[in-house]
Amino acid sequence: MNSDRTAVTVIGLGSMGSALAAALLEAGHPITVWNRSAGKARSLVDRGARLAATPEEAIAASRLTIACVWDYEVLHTVLDPIADCLAGKVLVNLTSGSPEQAHEAVEWARSHGADYLDGAIMTTPPGVGSREMMFLYSGSHAVFEAYRPALAALGDPLYLGTAPGLASLYDAALLGLMWSTMTGWLHGTALVGAEKTEATAFTPIAIRWLTAVAGFLTTYAPQVDAGRYPGDDATVDVQIAAIGHLIHAAERRGIDNALPELLKSAMERAKAAGHGSDSYASVIEVLKNPADHR
Amino acid sequence: MNSDRTAVTVIGLGSMGSALAAALLEAGHPITVWNRSAGKARSLVDRGARLAATPEEAIAASRLTIACVWDYEVLHTVLDPIADCLAGKVLVNLTSGSPEQAHEAVEWARSHGADYLDGAIMTTPPGVGSREMMFLYSGSHAVFEAYRPALAALGDPLYLGTAPGLASLYDAALLGLMWSTMTGWLHGTALVGAEKTEATAFTPIAIRWLTAVAGFLTTYAPQVDAGRYPGDDATVDVQIAAIGHLIHAAERRGIDNALPELLKSAMERAKAAGHGSDSYASVIEVLKNPADHR
Ligand SMILES: NC(=O)c1ccc[n+]([C@@H]2O[C@H](COP(=O)([O-])OP(=O)(O)OC[C@H]3O[C@@H](n4cnc5c(N)ncnc54)[C@H](OP(=O)(O)O)[C@@H]3O)[C@@H](O)[C@H]2O)c1
Ligand SMILES: NC(=O)c1ccc[n+]([C@@H]2O[C@H](COP(=O)([O-])OP(=O)(O)OC[C@H]3O[C@@H](n4cnc5c(N)ncnc54)[C@H](OP(=O)(O)O)[C@@H]3O)[C@@H](O)[C@H]2O)c1
Repeated sequence: MNSDRTAVTVIGLGSMGSALAAALLEAGHPITVWNRSAGKARSLVDRGARLAATPEEAIAASRLTIACVWDYEVLHTVLDPIADCLAGKVLVNLTSGSPEQAHEAVEWARSHGADYLDGAIMTTPPGVGSREMMFLYSGSHAVFEAYRPALAALGDPLYLGTAPGLASLYDAALLGLMWSTMTGWLHGTALVGAEKTEATAFTPIAIRWLTAVAGFLTTYAPQVDAGRYPGDDATVDVQIAAIGHLIHAAERRGIDNALPELLKSAMERAKAAGHGSDSYASVIEVLKNPADHR
Repeated sequence: MNSDRTAVTVIGLGSMGSALAAALLEAGHPITVWNRSAGKARSLVDRGARLAATPEEAIAASRLTIACVWDYEVLHTVLDPIADCLAGKVLVNLTSGSPEQAHEAVEWARSHGADYLDGAIMTTPPGVGSREMMFLYSGSHAVFEAYRPALAALGDPLYLGTAPGLASLYDAALLGLMWSTMTGWLHGTALVGAEKTEATAFTPIAIRWLTAVAGFLTTYAPQVDAGRYPGDDATVDVQIAAIGHLIHAAERRGIDNALPELLKSAMERAKAAGHGSDSYASVIEVLKNPADHR
């Protein structure tokens, strides 16, 4: 089972499932695939994948099945009718969902005699297969260890813990960070764009700046754990003064200010709670206890 | 003037001004300092700085003055009464402000016979003096080139263009990116913290994820310049489905959802404008033209 050539079944050949199957093929795994629309299997079959006619046949073909469909509802639509075939099998579910859905899926798999590992894919399809990209897993440590070589063909596998919801929880947290960062970047890009700076000129500077921002996060993480936020470097008061310039500059250029206004209000709630001369990390207090800070 | 040992005057010894003066001293520049509260000069004087008794004496001491005070109002409070002394001098202003304030300051300096360069400091005081940290400049290219060695003692000097407001505009845009990123990180940290993951455990994964996110920005920047947003990697529709999991997970754990709700609404406005199967970069359309997308 620890061989590099574990047989793998892939269920779901959307843009992500196809990328997963291609990476497994590339790494030399014998693979069997199934997708509702069979046509999407064509190029994989050309490269050596076996196309199963039914989900049942697909599950039967390998001990390990990796599922990546649109959502948990689809997962159940596909697997519930053939759940009896899961006994003795191992299901690694890379379909995105909530931590609660992952918890339910463990119970559901267990009730059908299957081992279950939950996962989250921290990249887009073009990133699949790269060692730099993170794949997060939680739940059965035995499954993770047994199938690590196959999982490593998809990206860098990180095991978060036995609570099955952890991968989904981290996924949600990291995607939230991504949307915040991408929207902040788009807002800044719109702002400098109003003065004829191209996105391709601004973005390398923005990316370099994110390295400095990552340094701030490293400084602030132990402050969060300690619940104390010394403002030695830059205080909430300093940030409130500075965000006024952003709002002013964006408003004059006709750019939507909902995001900076929201950020300013979070800072002002932190200040009102006594964190004016603390670091920005103190804003977590108003996020954790929203009812106290309205 | 191109010697490594240009004499420099520093006006303002708050936490940032003190760091600037210390970095110049460290690099071997003869420096003269002035601050409203003279006591803050003590440790600099111990290390060889000269303390001027008045702003007038400070300006007279060096051809180049670097100013870093709380805001432009303070700058004028300090310099307006002695503006006649500025003739023939060079003022590099690192006080934060809006692009409009930078424009006004150029005119003001010119009317008093001074050269003026506007700048923005993309780090906190502990980062001053590091070659990794960006200092942005805009306005007089001649001043930038003439004093580049002194400016390089503070950090990596980047020249953005002759429009004096550019440094402030980039500053606002980059700080917006920073607050968005830091708040997204704090939200995610609160979310995983609700399941007993420490900030110091989550943050290295978050920082590694930011590297992947930087890759998305690099992919999306030319899409923004082209005004076309092919959703090959991940579509707005996919993101809207995924943010539901974040909102659900955060709500169940009592965490403030204002930020993800705002991000979701921006995505939904992009979808309503026909960008459902485009990439996330299409969200810039609703930020640039808020009135069209309410
Ligand atoms: N794309 C990304 O960047 C990315 C990144 C991380 C995680 N993910 C996650 O990966 C999962 C798949 O995403 P994707 O990008 O591959 O989406 P996609 O291209 O839209 O593929 C959706 C998949 O679900 C199947 N499906 C949908 N409804 C079905 C139904 N009623 N019955 C049977 N099959 C059905 C589709 O089959 P048909 O081909 O027959 O329609 C297809 O295989 C999602 O949970 C997504 O959140 C995606
Ligand atoms: N700290 C950062 O991380 C950071 C990062 C980038 C940019 N900046 C910018 O750097 C500038 C200075 O920030 P800072 O962190 O050094 O702030 P700070 O520690 O509060 O220092 C404020 C400075 O302004 C002076 N000042 C305030 N009111 C004055 C008045 N009425 N008359 C004369 N002087 C007055 C203070 O003099 P006294 O000492 O006498 O009060 C002090 O020199 C700001 O524009 C800030 O946005 C700061």
